[in-house]
Amino acid sequence: MNKLYIIKIGGNVLDNPSVLEKFLFDFASIKEPKILIHGGGKIATHIGNQMGIESNYVNGRRITDAATLDLVTMVYGGLVNKQLVAKLQQGNCNAMGVTGADGNLIKATKRPVKEINYGFVGDITPHSVNTALLYFLLKQNTVPVFAPLTHADGMMLNTNADTIASVIAVALSKHFDVRLIFCFEKKGVLRDVNQSESVIRHLHRNLYEELLGKQAFADGILPKLENAYAAIQAGVKEVLIGDASDLIHNTGHETEGTLITI
Amino acid sequence: MNKLYIIKIGGNVLDNPSVLEKFLFDFASIKEPKILIHGGGKIATHIGNQMGIESNYVNGRRITDAATLDLVTMVYGGLVNKQLVAKLQQGNCNAMGVTGADGNLIKATKRPVKEINYGFVGDITPHSVNTALLYFLLKQNTVPVFAPLTHADGMMLNTNADTIASVIAVALSKHFDVRLIFCFEKKGVLRDVNQSESVIRHLHRNLYEELLGKQAFADGILPKLENAYAAIQAGVKEVLIGDASDLIHNTGHETEGTLITI
Repeated sequence: MNKLYIIKIGGNVLDNPSVLEKFLFDFASIKEPKILIHGGGKIATHIGNQMGIESNYVNGRRITDAATLDLVTMVYGGLVNKQLVAKLQQGNCNAMGVTGADGNLIKATKRPVKEINYGFVGDITPHSVNTALLYFLLKQNTVPVFAPLTHADGMMLNTNADTIASVIAVALSKHFDVRLIFCFEKKGVLRDVNQSESVIRHLHRNLYEELLGKQAFADGILPKLENAYAAIQAGVKEVLIGDASDLIHNTGHETEGTLITI
Repeated sequence: MNKLYIIKIGGNVLDNPSVLEKFLFDFASIKEPKILIHGGGKIATHIGNQMGIESNYVNGRRITDAATLDLVTMVYGGLVNKQLVAKLQQGNCNAMGVTGADGNLIKATKRPVKEINYGFVGDITPHSVNTALLYFLLKQNTVPVFAPLTHADGMMLNTNADTIASVIAVALSKHFDVRLIFCFEKKGVLRDVNQSESVIRHLHRNLYEELLGKQAFADGILPKLENAYAAIQAGVKEVLIGDASDLIHNTGHETEGTLITI
């Protein structure tokens, strides 16, 4: 099977123009089929403040009310997405900016109201993905660039970018050897959280369980590792956690970040 | 050749929820391949006011400065475009929201600065259109929905929605029998501007020149008719000017609006 890179970037890349520029240059240079998923960054909060839209939290979880939904649809689906696409086009990368609504690429279900009403949030599974159209877009040498938005019942919905990346990776793992790359603020998963160079280069299942038994992982990284193994369990070949500035290495054999495999 | 409908809507449809709802229902029901191009409407001005972005005009022409470009990229490319797409998806129409940057569908040149600096405005011709990708999207039964934005040199650019509709119509006229439909505030081109029911149902070149000689057209309609004949000259089979609420009739044989042909 052909290789496919699915790469997620968040605020720590989007909010730093020089980091973003280097990342987009490196991303455009990847020869294999590839998909980019982006989060939001500070710009949504900034524009929300200008418009007098307040962020609402319940028990520390952000609530997407109607005004916030319009805000993220504008800022993530419009401003951030199209600026990324225009810059990638300049780098001769035939980017195509999409949300889950476009071409019905990801159809969600609105999160049911239980103890908390999260508002306009879309829950998704790998079955939510229009794999046929996505495969066709990749075959046309276009590069899908996903904003973290889905849809259901005539509405746009807010969906976590990490979840979109994982779900697309699983859905396309029947057609490609997928390497799912999460760019975050460290070089990789660290053996010692106080030593930024103590990156675990290759984490396989046995080592993972050994380190898990020793309680060797920092709390913050555990959900990411659990998600990584869930994706691998569901068919994704490799998950990589690393720094956006190491993208060239992390799309090669000798990775700088943490390559997670079965 | 197969029929293709290319339909442009502006503020008078977008700003009226009940008109828009009926239009989208009718649009979704069209069986043939189709493309929608939308303008902006009042929402951009409204959000611009909230954000303290002022509209700049020079000699009555709007100037797209950097803040306005970000505004229209957000509002047209994000909010308006994705809300239309989500609603069409609900109507089982596989809409795919795009700008000219996406898939390099329309590559513009930034308008040169002469007497007036129009700012971030993109000029386009039928050669600007990535006809191959657009044709493939139509073949996949997706329905492109264009926001009035193009790109050049890593930037988004503001481009008139009527111009985008015309340019796409000409570019695709090699592959399809194109009917290009402009929805506006009247039922069609009127013989007597004071009589709203005096619609000219079929305007062919001889009648056009005869009425032109008699100075029978109202000033406002003349540029639209000139553009229509320029599109027909360049290969578009038919141009229709009519009311959005007559869409079902205007995509059939017995049109309510003005059908313009050679």
